[in-house]
Amino acid sequence: MSRLRQILGRNLRLARNRLKLSQEVLAGESGVDRTYVSGIERGLRNPSVDLIEKLAGALGVTAADLITDPAPESLRRKPDEDAEAEASG
Amino acid sequence: MSRLRQILGRNLRLARNRLKLSQEVLAGESGVDRTYVSGIERGLRNPSVDLIEKLAGALGVTAADLITDPAPESLRRKPDEDAEAEASG
Repeated sequence: MSRLRQILGRNLRLARNRLKLSQEVLAGESGVDRTYVSGIERGLRNPSVDLIEKLAGALGVTAADLITDPAPESLRRKPDEDAEAEASG
Repeated sequence: MSRLRQILGRNLRLARNRLKLSQEVLAGESGVDRTYVSGIERGLRNPSVDLIEKLAGALGVTAADLITDPAPESLRRKPDEDAEAEASG
């Protein structure tokens, strides 16, 4: 399994859990099957740039965030902490 | 054409030109045809995560660098400026 697939899988799961979205809902918003989202999160799938863009859009993060290692802090932060983090710079 | 394809195409060309690599040499190192590299740079192709990882490896940049907007300064810097930039922090 490629290293980048592992990074993408971990970051995708973080970003999804952050929003408390199910794999099924994310899949629906991205136009793929739930099992495909599950496969990406486990590093078993090799998604395209277009799909990464759709996933990022559905999760409110950038595509680069999804393949950055280590995972950006913003993917771990709870949504209700966003305003606070912005206020403190 | 997706927005992310445009970003990838621009950043890929910047990183390749930075190293003065031809499309053909980069293609050879990444295991694809030269016309495929050309297609990515023009936003006509929809490459996979695995291929982005190979391209980034061949160019000495991160995969995230290739889909970051605006393009990271490191993609524009000449290789002989790297040491200088590191020295100045």
